[in-house]
Amino acid sequence: MTFYQRIAQVTNNQNSLLCVGLDPDINRMPDSIRSHPDPQFKFCSEIIESTKHAAAAFKINFAFFEAEGSHGWASLEKLVEIIPSNILKLADAKRADIGNTSDMYARAILEKLNFDAVTVNPYLGKDSVAPFLQWPEKGAFILCLTSNPGAKDFQYFSNGSKTLFTQVLEQVQSWNIHQNCGLVVGATKPGELKSIRNAAPELPFLIPGLGAQGGDLKEAVLQGTDNAGQLALFNSSRSIIYKSSGNDFAEAAKREAELLRDEINRVRDEKHS
Amino acid sequence: MTFYQRIAQVTNNQNSLLCVGLDPDINRMPDSIRSHPDPQFKFCSEIIESTKHAAAAFKINFAFFEAEGSHGWASLEKLVEIIPSNILKLADAKRADIGNTSDMYARAILEKLNFDAVTVNPYLGKDSVAPFLQWPEKGAFILCLTSNPGAKDFQYFSNGSKTLFTQVLEQVQSWNIHQNCGLVVGATKPGELKSIRNAAPELPFLIPGLGAQGGDLKEAVLQGTDNAGQLALFNSSRSIIYKSSGNDFAEAAKREAELLRDEINRVRDEKHS
Repeated sequence: MTFYQRIAQVTNNQNSLLCVGLDPDINRMPDSIRSHPDPQFKFCSEIIESTKHAAAAFKINFAFFEAEGSHGWASLEKLVEIIPSNILKLADAKRADIGNTSDMYARAILEKLNFDAVTVNPYLGKDSVAPFLQWPEKGAFILCLTSNPGAKDFQYFSNGSKTLFTQVLEQVQSWNIHQNCGLVVGATKPGELKSIRNAAPELPFLIPGLGAQGGDLKEAVLQGTDNAGQLALFNSSRSIIYKSSGNDFAEAAKREAELLRDEINRVRDEKHS
Repeated sequence: MTFYQRIAQVTNNQNSLLCVGLDPDINRMPDSIRSHPDPQFKFCSEIIESTKHAAAAFKINFAFFEAEGSHGWASLEKLVEIIPSNILKLADAKRADIGNTSDMYARAILEKLNFDAVTVNPYLGKDSVAPFLQWPEKGAFILCLTSNPGAKDFQYFSNGSKTLFTQVLEQVQSWNIHQNCGLVVGATKPGELKSIRNAAPELPFLIPGLGAQGGDLKEAVLQGTDNAGQLALFNSSRSIIYKSSGNDFAEAAKREAELLRDEINRVRDEKHS
């Protein structure tokens, strides 16, 4: 099964385009979890259990685990193993380096940790991205237009007829021989999201920036999905996993995930009807 | 002591601009090391011991440790602790993400692991780089023009009057309030190295691409150092650490590191005289 076939299967079976982002900050967990010997694993495993019926993907943010050193990395290793096989496992690692080093990152994340896909930074060009694309059943979401304020510093750099982020999407299309490339496009910029979707109707998008970052859900779904209301994963991290700071965090995450899934689906239906 | 003062102190005391890159691939180590319970630590510790008199910096390539999972990360933690305090500890991690996530990466690398500096990818802009610049005594080398073939894909993207890599160096200069920004500029492109040095006479450069990647040492030193023959670290990884594939690897690395240090210094003297 190719990566694109797998995305279609998972999003259809789950009837969801929701990606639940796991950014486990120990300082934001309830005391009952912080006192656990492995608080990041414990916290995330409860989130996974309570939201897995509503999610198409879980996205693990490597930085939060690396902040805890080798113990954090061991928590990440345990965590990726308990994500159910019917849900996509996304590594939010934003890696890339020269070819032989990117190959090490790709093997670490897509082979050893067995993620389905990884976020990749395009700045170093084709040979830095290619190692992440060597398995047709695994994918890479390449940063195109990000959701943060600094996106303006370089991504809008223009040669007069096109911006850098447009150059990135065109190059990614030319690299997509295994049908396993996707793009990261922020929900905070719906106008650009629309133009990127028009330019790349065939690519799956990972769309962060809902919730804490302020992206408008309705606009993001209208502009980010393809004509069939597919090919997009909408990530929310903090607004789901920290919906409650109390011991009911997993229950609160469940309600928020269901609400987001349903709201996304409502807009998809509206667009498609 | 600011980061720039520290670079000056180390390079003067060591009389060296050599950075020894630690990219420990277990498949390239002699059998006597591969059979060790922690081959990456054992291999790198022998390299450090044999080359520390000739080096200004050791650069640890995170990908090679992450390829071994949490055990590799634990090896990296042990390794950074044994690098002598009179030598710079560089994390070659090429990280960057949105602000709150970059802050986690910065704390993981510059606080918890206590590296002196880290390589950072600029694609996400100012707020993604700022967290790595929050400690004046620690620095970030931001990717400007890289040594790999894919550098041409985006880094040369031009608005007619300047390229993306020039836009990066100009932005980095405006972010440099703590005097702790540096640039990564590949040795494989001496013409551009010259123009980048002219445009940024005050920034330290980390210059990879000597040795296995084919960069010309003399041209790199002539164009990459400042007018005083300073402000540059020349990295070589594979050509030092794999100089011999036998049990004499550490001794061979010692000779190669000394040779490179001396050759760099010879060109510096020539430029300065």
